[in-house]
Amino acid sequence: MESILKKDQNYIWHPLTQHKTQPEVLPITRAKGVWLYDDKENAYIDAISSWYTSIYGHCHPKIIHAAQEQMQNCDQVIFSGFTHAPAANLAEALIGILPENQQKVFFSDNGSTATEIGIKIALQYHHNKGQERHVILAFEEGFHGDTFGAMSVSGLSVYNGPFENHFIKVVRIAVPNENNHKQVLSNLEKLIDIHDIAGFIYEPLVQGAAGMKMYEAKYLIPILELCKAHEIITIADEVMTGFGKTGTAFASQQISILPDVICLSKALTAGFMPMAITSCTQRIFDAFYSDDTSKGLFHCHTYTANPIACAVAKASVDLLVSKSMQQHRKRIEQSHKEFIAALCKHPKAQNVRSKGIILAFELQIDCKERYGNTRKKIYNAFMAQGIYLRPLGNTIYIVPPFITTNKELQKIYTSIENILELV
Amino acid sequence: MESILKKDQNYIWHPLTQHKTQPEVLPITRAKGVWLYDDKENAYIDAISSWYTSIYGHCHPKIIHAAQEQMQNCDQVIFSGFTHAPAANLAEALIGILPENQQKVFFSDNGSTATEIGIKIALQYHHNKGQERHVILAFEEGFHGDTFGAMSVSGLSVYNGPFENHFIKVVRIAVPNENNHKQVLSNLEKLIDIHDIAGFIYEPLVQGAAGMKMYEAKYLIPILELCKAHEIITIADEVMTGFGKTGTAFASQQISILPDVICLSKALTAGFMPMAITSCTQRIFDAFYSDDTSKGLFHCHTYTANPIACAVAKASVDLLVSKSMQQHRKRIEQSHKEFIAALCKHPKAQNVRSKGIILAFELQIDCKERYGNTRKKIYNAFMAQGIYLRPLGNTIYIVPPFITTNKELQKIYTSIENILELV
Repeated sequence: MESILKKDQNYIWHPLTQHKTQPEVLPITRAKGVWLYDDKENAYIDAISSWYTSIYGHCHPKIIHAAQEQMQNCDQVIFSGFTHAPAANLAEALIGILPENQQKVFFSDNGSTATEIGIKIALQYHHNKGQERHVILAFEEGFHGDTFGAMSVSGLSVYNGPFENHFIKVVRIAVPNENNHKQVLSNLEKLIDIHDIAGFIYEPLVQGAAGMKMYEAKYLIPILELCKAHEIITIADEVMTGFGKTGTAFASQQISILPDVICLSKALTAGFMPMAITSCTQRIFDAFYSDDTSKGLFHCHTYTANPIACAVAKASVDLLVSKSMQQHRKRIEQSHKEFIAALCKHPKAQNVRSKGIILAFELQIDCKERYGNTRKKIYNAFMAQGIYLRPLGNTIYIVPPFITTNKELQKIYTSIENILELV
Repeated sequence: MESILKKDQNYIWHPLTQHKTQPEVLPITRAKGVWLYDDKENAYIDAISSWYTSIYGHCHPKIIHAAQEQMQNCDQVIFSGFTHAPAANLAEALIGILPENQQKVFFSDNGSTATEIGIKIALQYHHNKGQERHVILAFEEGFHGDTFGAMSVSGLSVYNGPFENHFIKVVRIAVPNENNHKQVLSNLEKLIDIHDIAGFIYEPLVQGAAGMKMYEAKYLIPILELCKAHEIITIADEVMTGFGKTGTAFASQQISILPDVICLSKALTAGFMPMAITSCTQRIFDAFYSDDTSKGLFHCHTYTANPIACAVAKASVDLLVSKSMQQHRKRIEQSHKEFIAALCKHPKAQNVRSKGIILAFELQIDCKERYGNTRKKIYNAFMAQGIYLRPLGNTIYIVPPFITTNKELQKIYTSIENILELV
């Protein structure tokens, strides 16, 4: 594999990487089920489902089968003026499992484009109604992607310095909790008075990139109610939370006020290939339906609704609703509960939390940098135990594939217990 | 197929579509070689290679084979901290055919993200050197994508009204031609005096979305020279022009001043699935290589460098450089020349032009709207003849797959001749 490493070093610029301080890169040669294999056939449990995508395990036979069938038949057609069965069948299946107010799906390629489309929908909704609004509301510490619109609404701007002068207009509120929720609400009232807020984008219940920070529906509901009262379009970014990870198909289904718009990607295609969707209610769609051409949403990417991706995503929805995957999810939730009980007693584990199959806590150590040296040491210690995790600073989190066996879960838990002794 | 149409109507929001005035949508069931088939088994020649992607024909066996092999092995891994053979092999192959100054590739998912990354590279390059620059230079009538950064640099802003208040700072120059080139250059000198320009993004030689407008290298060269002299990062958007369509592998290879950054997508994966790349020189990469973590490029999409997409793109590069595809391209260029000679004599064909396998002209009719009624009539008249073209206003253009036979080319040409009689 030396030649792969050499080529990598010569020609590749990796994402989220400072090549000078992070020169190491591990060649992965195979992935099957929950396991990743490196060039020396070392095996690692993919305990974060490759960024929350491969939730049914890598190279699932039903996903591969769906792709193989479709790619023989029709690889790609333009989705303006044309349609195809894979897109129509996927759209129907998704509307069947999305929160009940969702009616239409708009396709794109990744989480960033899904949220950009959500933002564009919110701005143009008001524009089409002849009442321009210019500001987007977002949470502090939210994350919604890396393109300019998506970066702008992301509060996690540690590395966004060079671009901040180019952001769209955003105002922020704190994530509500037991202590601040009244203050957050009154702050929001003031913001609504001052600014013409078009939309509110939020990660429902779990903020992924912030370090799997969790907050309660009961504190979000008054915020969403206030938005609805002021016709602020609510955009739930379920790119991370979607597809069964939080205990329900979508996190928004645990919140009594449903969003106008939902952003989907990642597990949508089960860790097979990129695709994203922005769904919305009929009311939103109708605001773009007009004799005036320019009131349409003129956003498009070339591979929009790629038939292979649609076929794969339909197979993925079938897996999600299968009895077997639902049982797996319940089993993991139960298993997490027992581990959490033990973890809570450990003096070095703080703020232990879980939602569905997501489990997270902070190590009681000094580690401010998301990608610094301490974090690197912890990362390497997990890898040495055959566990692939990506700590964020001192936050450890797991989002295991649904098919992770109890024995494999124990292996993950044990590795965490070992790390707790090590730090 | 009624149920597909019904599902489409119920659940799908199409891109670039005003659903009220454009309710028709045609179900495509199969695609093979240059042919698209609808639900009644009507066949259409895909004379624009499905937006310049399927240049080796749909469902090419070598592309399918590459995907099938890879998807059994490793569907997806995170590309931060990990690498894999499909990415390394693709990177090497691309660097082998890209303009000789290109050294590193940064992966993403579509043309919009490829250009956003190009823009971010230009801004952060100067930021990292401690000399902030805030403005991007672009051509009038350029098109670079639909996310906020990409929209901002696009001059074709017919439908961007609701978003213009949120654009990044951009200044524009006209596309240079025989008449205006001196003026354009002096305008640019003034702009450089007034603004701190970080980068210049341009579609080299052919502006696709503007209606396949073509301009000459000799007028672009002094602009690029002026940019280089002022350390303005030059970003060639080859999303449309890339991969052999303009006569060389990349249009930039026909221009003596090479770009610092190149954006690729569309035909990169041969019309199979989404992927994009932003390549750059070693000098650009080195400006991000530092002991300071924050000088890295912290941009990432989840499916960045998806192994299946990389394997497909590698097979696509192999096809591009194959003798057979090179012969096909020459054959089509020759065939176009003969047709152009005839077309030039027709009183209703204006501004007949070609570059490589791209051929375009304007119909001498009154048709200002890109997607209006006249355009719809022309579109339908082509479809009735079994030819899939997407006129832009009164501009007719073809970008046929390389494997289009002479007989199929004649069928396209004849359909154009028929339209010329009709309008």
